[in-house]
Amino acid sequence: MADKPEKTKARLPRGFADRGAEDIRAVEKMMATIRSVYELYGFEPVDQPMIEYTDALGKFLPDQDRPNEGVFSFQDDDDQWLSLRYDLTAPTARFVAENYDRLPKPYRSYRSGWVFRNEKPGPGRFRQFMQFDADTIGTPGVAADAEMAMMMADVMEALGIKRGDYIIRVNNRKVLDGVLEAIGLGGDHNAGRRLTVLRAIDKLDKLGSEGVRLLLGAGRKDESGDFTKGAGLDDNKIAAIFAIVSLSYSDLEGGIPDIKGIPAVARDAGELHDGFHELSTINQLVRASGYGADRIKIDPSVVRGLEYYTGPVFEAELLAEIPNEDGQIVRFGSVGGGGRYDGLVSRFRGEPVPATGFSIGVSRLMTALKNLGKLDTSDVIAPVVVLVMDKDVESLGRYQKMVADLRAAGIRSEMYLGGAGMKAQLKYADRRGSPVAVIQGGDERAKGEVQIKDLIEGARLSAEITDNAEWRAARPAQVTVAEGDLVAEVKKILAAQAADRAKGGASRPAYQ
Amino acid sequence: MADKPEKTKARLPRGFADRGAEDIRAVEKMMATIRSVYELYGFEPVDQPMIEYTDALGKFLPDQDRPNEGVFSFQDDDDQWLSLRYDLTAPTARFVAENYDRLPKPYRSYRSGWVFRNEKPGPGRFRQFMQFDADTIGTPGVAADAEMAMMMADVMEALGIKRGDYIIRVNNRKVLDGVLEAIGLGGDHNAGRRLTVLRAIDKLDKLGSEGVRLLLGAGRKDESGDFTKGAGLDDNKIAAIFAIVSLSYSDLEGGIPDIKGIPAVARDAGELHDGFHELSTINQLVRASGYGADRIKIDPSVVRGLEYYTGPVFEAELLAEIPNEDGQIVRFGSVGGGGRYDGLVSRFRGEPVPATGFSIGVSRLMTALKNLGKLDTSDVIAPVVVLVMDKDVESLGRYQKMVADLRAAGIRSEMYLGGAGMKAQLKYADRRGSPVAVIQGGDERAKGEVQIKDLIEGARLSAEITDNAEWRAARPAQVTVAEGDLVAEVKKILAAQAADRAKGGASRPAYQ
Repeated sequence: MADKPEKTKARLPRGFADRGAEDIRAVEKMMATIRSVYELYGFEPVDQPMIEYTDALGKFLPDQDRPNEGVFSFQDDDDQWLSLRYDLTAPTARFVAENYDRLPKPYRSYRSGWVFRNEKPGPGRFRQFMQFDADTIGTPGVAADAEMAMMMADVMEALGIKRGDYIIRVNNRKVLDGVLEAIGLGGDHNAGRRLTVLRAIDKLDKLGSEGVRLLLGAGRKDESGDFTKGAGLDDNKIAAIFAIVSLSYSDLEGGIPDIKGIPAVARDAGELHDGFHELSTINQLVRASGYGADRIKIDPSVVRGLEYYTGPVFEAELLAEIPNEDGQIVRFGSVGGGGRYDGLVSRFRGEPVPATGFSIGVSRLMTALKNLGKLDTSDVIAPVVVLVMDKDVESLGRYQKMVADLRAAGIRSEMYLGGAGMKAQLKYADRRGSPVAVIQGGDERAKGEVQIKDLIEGARLSAEITDNAEWRAARPAQVTVAEGDLVAEVKKILAAQAADRAKGGASRPAYQ
Repeated sequence: MADKPEKTKARLPRGFADRGAEDIRAVEKMMATIRSVYELYGFEPVDQPMIEYTDALGKFLPDQDRPNEGVFSFQDDDDQWLSLRYDLTAPTARFVAENYDRLPKPYRSYRSGWVFRNEKPGPGRFRQFMQFDADTIGTPGVAADAEMAMMMADVMEALGIKRGDYIIRVNNRKVLDGVLEAIGLGGDHNAGRRLTVLRAIDKLDKLGSEGVRLLLGAGRKDESGDFTKGAGLDDNKIAAIFAIVSLSYSDLEGGIPDIKGIPAVARDAGELHDGFHELSTINQLVRASGYGADRIKIDPSVVRGLEYYTGPVFEAELLAEIPNEDGQIVRFGSVGGGGRYDGLVSRFRGEPVPATGFSIGVSRLMTALKNLGKLDTSDVIAPVVVLVMDKDVESLGRYQKMVADLRAAGIRSEMYLGGAGMKAQLKYADRRGSPVAVIQGGDERAKGEVQIKDLIEGARLSAEITDNAEWRAARPAQVTVAEGDLVAEVKKILAAQAADRAKGGASRPAYQ
């Protein structure tokens, strides 16, 4: 040990991950589709850097009770604090506030990119992840919120998710805020308790109403014996909250519902009333545009975790039962969400700048689409490999020329660049999933010929021999042609392989 | 003042920038082209996160004399230091070292993404910028380096840069390192002085040989009177360095040149000899593949600023005289570079893992291409705007339905979502660069009709009236049709506009 130089350990910090070829290609494909829908709706691309002044981002994460948690921060040369963005909305608000006068209003924009959370990582929970957002800034009208919901429904279908396999759920923060205000949880000093209540409601799906009742009251012990402190509300107040979150869609579609069980003071409160009125308007607008309750639905149990929402909130949920990131077959759940954030731009401008937006969780949606079989990337063909049989500069130049000719004809190809012998080179080609190998040793060179191996047909033939499967008339797995016919012959083989694939025949994935 | 809430100032830290629609679209287009060339060469996408352990990235920036400079760093919960990546090569080395056994070797990969430098920002010098890299890891053969040079030449032409407007320059660190060793600048303790020498040589283009001689010797005072300390070499040593960097291509293409003026000990040194031999091999390989000296050229003055290069280095230079980021008409210069970095993966593995790669500076190249007129994004059509004449929910629903119908037909469109009147709405459509506006007031609604304005023809007609230009038979700038014919009529107008554009007629850019 002592005579070896000290090695640095190659490892990533927890919560960060490398991405392989298949995931990168799948995300590219998915994002191109999302982009085309955003563009169709008249949104324009714009983006912001990943680093902002900490005060410009504000503290709107669920963890705001711990001021330095949640965000990666560091000091600049002039001692000012900088942070990595934790979402795309806060930087967008800064950008719009800074450029307000020169932007068309309402300002419709979209952006995608990585965001960072300095949280405890867990399975499927990363400290760097990608979002894809659209925002309409500068309009208070809920027509903008309705449009967000419709656009997300269109995104789901453009991605191949069948109607019935997804739902866009819509609620309004004003409704719940009105009740919380009425039961004495208003004001800045109650922000922490309001958050506890919101998080409890957010667990309705997982814990059922009995568990949520405990979290709203004295607290709850889970199966493992861990105790979660409750919001400490009495039974009347809990009943008032449940009166809201258990409203059914049929209570709501008609307009302002008749809500029993909540304090009269809340029932008459402007905010609560406005909230229901807005939901009713959204409902009418989406129906008029032909979006039924099988696509967009008012649902009073929707709660979004971020602090900055002030009005309508949305959630895109996949209803299909497919494997999640941990491999469990479950109703997949949320793949994105958003809402109205009327305060975010205003805090820079000192004048009202209402805004609404939607954010898609790119990795989660990609996982779902892959599991639904909607992101096939097997159309990417691995490169043809030209083997290196002789390593003198002249032979290398000749192999390099073959590769250059193949590439000039648009055929993905490479010269083997390692130091191994022929057997290892064929293994390399196999490892890459190559469709064809090109070989020229001294004998072939002397005759001006090349050997071309069809690696897919070769693999099929040997599999059939092994499996003793039914024989069929096969292409030759190997041909020798004049060097001048190399490109034409490789083209012919690739075309035959493509025809086989189209018939559902043998195929091999590119290396990932 | 006292009664206003304190506003947060909307501003970005220096060295960071927002990107508008035109730049984003241009970069997308450019990167798709680069990607297609990398793919054609058999490289596969892979990427790494933006945050790594500080020790895993290592310190290879030019500023390594100031250990905490150059990199954004912060401590994790467990007190370990994390950094934002400063390039894509160091994380790639970590990734390959960590996954070495499961990867095919040589491992050919590409990636693009943002990197961060905690440096003093300046004009055209950002603290966050994008790179697009390709790397071949696991082969010592210079065939891999030759391939990098050829791929970069192909990238330039795929982007529409004419032969003669670019050059890929190739040198070898071993050549210069051999001389530096021979004149007594070898060893770790001379790293700082070697860097001073490299940076001086890098300024040959800007300062000429007299300026560089001063920087290699006692130092140099520039026009503004600022003094830069020199490397402190005596005349003999400076002559030895100039003997190398002033070699011409014709000295080199034949193989090992006869170098007068450098110490005999250097002339016979293995490293120097190897360096020239490798350059000669690269020269032969690229010529055999059909790449002439007008595309790839050995040039002993090429020096790359990063510390980790160990062998061949490359630079892609644009020779065209076009405006740079500051608007000055200049020979544009470097848009990317790279080289062999045999030590980067090895420092994790304790065994040799040779590697070579190339990095394109995305923003710089994009600026160049835009100035060359090679990144036209005017094919993006702005959205059709459906005006809101009445704001009751029923009317809004009807406008929303028109937009939904247009989108269903693939026509980019939006309903105006602000609160303004008709004149301001038409101004908004104009600001967006919209091709068509759709109007339905109470009268039209009663008759089941819509008014459709051709905004491009309208603008052209009023411009002609203003300019008193030659009259030509015009399309009507406005038509009224039955509501059921909306989509068909808008399609007709868009087609007519497209035909006009194809004939070089009036067009308007989409809002940026």
